[in-house]
Amino acid sequence: MRATIIHGARDIRVETVPDPQIQETTDALVRVVSACICGSDLWPYRSMAASEHGERIGHEFVGVVEDVGSGVSGLNRGDLVVAPFVWADNTCDFCREGLQTSCRHGGLWGRNGVDGGQGEAVRVPQAQGTLVKLPVGEDSALLPSLLSLSDVFPTGYHCAHTAGVTPRTTVTVIGDGAVGLSAVLSAKRLGAERIILMGHHRDRTDLGLRFGATEVVAERGEEGIEKVLELTGGDGTHRVLECVGLRDAIETSFAVVRDGGVVSRVGAPQYSEVPMDFGLFMRNVTLTGGVAPVRAYIDELIPDVLDGTIEPGLVFDMTVKLDDVPDGYKAMAGRTALKVMVRP
Amino acid sequence: MRATIIHGARDIRVETVPDPQIQETTDALVRVVSACICGSDLWPYRSMAASEHGERIGHEFVGVVEDVGSGVSGLNRGDLVVAPFVWADNTCDFCREGLQTSCRHGGLWGRNGVDGGQGEAVRVPQAQGTLVKLPVGEDSALLPSLLSLSDVFPTGYHCAHTAGVTPRTTVTVIGDGAVGLSAVLSAKRLGAERIILMGHHRDRTDLGLRFGATEVVAERGEEGIEKVLELTGGDGTHRVLECVGLRDAIETSFAVVRDGGVVSRVGAPQYSEVPMDFGLFMRNVTLTGGVAPVRAYIDELIPDVLDGTIEPGLVFDMTVKLDDVPDGYKAMAGRTALKVMVRP
Repeated sequence: MRATIIHGARDIRVETVPDPQIQETTDALVRVVSACICGSDLWPYRSMAASEHGERIGHEFVGVVEDVGSGVSGLNRGDLVVAPFVWADNTCDFCREGLQTSCRHGGLWGRNGVDGGQGEAVRVPQAQGTLVKLPVGEDSALLPSLLSLSDVFPTGYHCAHTAGVTPRTTVTVIGDGAVGLSAVLSAKRLGAERIILMGHHRDRTDLGLRFGATEVVAERGEEGIEKVLELTGGDGTHRVLECVGLRDAIETSFAVVRDGGVVSRVGAPQYSEVPMDFGLFMRNVTLTGGVAPVRAYIDELIPDVLDGTIEPGLVFDMTVKLDDVPDGYKAMAGRTALKVMVRP
Repeated sequence: MRATIIHGARDIRVETVPDPQIQETTDALVRVVSACICGSDLWPYRSMAASEHGERIGHEFVGVVEDVGSGVSGLNRGDLVVAPFVWADNTCDFCREGLQTSCRHGGLWGRNGVDGGQGEAVRVPQAQGTLVKLPVGEDSALLPSLLSLSDVFPTGYHCAHTAGVTPRTTVTVIGDGAVGLSAVLSAKRLGAERIILMGHHRDRTDLGLRFGATEVVAERGEEGIEKVLELTGGDGTHRVLECVGLRDAIETSFAVVRDGGVVSRVGAPQYSEVPMDFGLFMRNVTLTGGVAPVRAYIDELIPDVLDGTIEPGLVFDMTVKLDDVPDGYKAMAGRTALKVMVRP
């Protein structure tokens, strides 16, 4: 089959690789119907050292079950399924606590002999725990939004949920990427009446307004911080959803969070230290968030997608065929695309 | 009157200062019955630069109301009261949210013309919001425990409360000082069935066991971390209560917290950065806590003290007269005393 392999920075290739086979009784084989390029794929795209054999890449997909191992029940050939960006047994103690990203028998796509999502097919380990059946056909108009359940939308939702967004909290969202916009939609879903979106790409912040942002702050750095403080009487907001992952974004978060408030981060950290100093201690600021246990949220979010209450798939603004995946990376890295869908 | 003044590192003096007077209608005058030396007083005691006029010190006291301003109701001459370590109006939005440490009209003892607690008397700003009446006489045997409500016990309680300690969570407490032991007592009160206390002063950890610790880890550094992990099947505990304030203690906290867990800090940070890196992001670890809004907890805790359910005052193991306050500092800094009570 054909699959995407990253060989180093800006070196993405679509190559022929061995067809996946059932290896464990808990595996399933899934033919990929649509996949995505993730903001987090851009980190290795920008900085990965050249590698001799390269690595599979992609961790978001919707597909059709083609075969299941003898230990898999509840899934059958022909089922349309969405895969969370981490595979997990969904039965261990961590999974039962809703922390499937720490599953005792789980792992990441594209590592240790497991296929990546940006390919024609995937061997899915722990298939029964990992895959979620979708009650629509593969030609459904809901497919983009259902695909967004594999990562980007529940990642935004994890951010808002762990932050403790409620109708009584004001919210600042940092970042107008697909995750930031998903965080806006999530904060809205959780009832926040005031959602300030910090971002300076007009087409993206326009989608943010459609998703529920009440104000946009396009200014950056100190100027942006001052603007948020000005909008909030000098106090900042109760919750800050950090959807970037850079040190600057964390510092901005701390500057615009209200005393006693919560900063939640879902941007994969490109920093190793954060300034949780005496001042933030005196202000009782909490830092939470982390990698999103998507599987924990899918069941809750699917009904809203199916009945059209929310349309998280609006973040997709470019679609490429599998062989054109390198163009998708180029477009996302150059910010000419917000989020790219791949149709093998 | 006589009051304690810190002039620099290891330079504590008890001097004659002007008698406090009512200045604002919201003030009260309180004759101090008993005060304390706090672990946080030891930071300036160890490192403060020499100062020409010195600064008042002390922020924990129980006393008797001697006079009240015309704007104070609910308090009368002769009332025995406890003062939280931050004064606050208890009516602003932050106070109503239980964050009296961020009160819009509050402040710290010993600053900006406000008396410190280690003296004969104190002018109490925002007296109606700050002071809490105690239904006992000043000779009550409960006085040490009621005095502990001014800071040390609710600080431990804030740590356990913001960490989210429940009967379903396992807990590690870092530090066997008076705050750490108060955190043990608090975790026990909140129902934790397993409380691992990390500390290496035998007499202190013995009190920790009496307060509810189920295990003591006396090993320090890497060895201590390994021991906690060994006790928890390699996972660490759901909650870690950091009651020291040093970088080492924060690092130990992150090393012994379970994936998806919470580190709560109440040790005044002697660091400016914490390593909330990619690894902790992948483990969904939360860092919370901060300076304790003691006033928010006193009403809840008083009944348990009055009926003897808890005895937080057991942390006091030395009492000095006001003129001997310098000896009290020496004893606490040299760890020959756990916590010192001052009786003017």
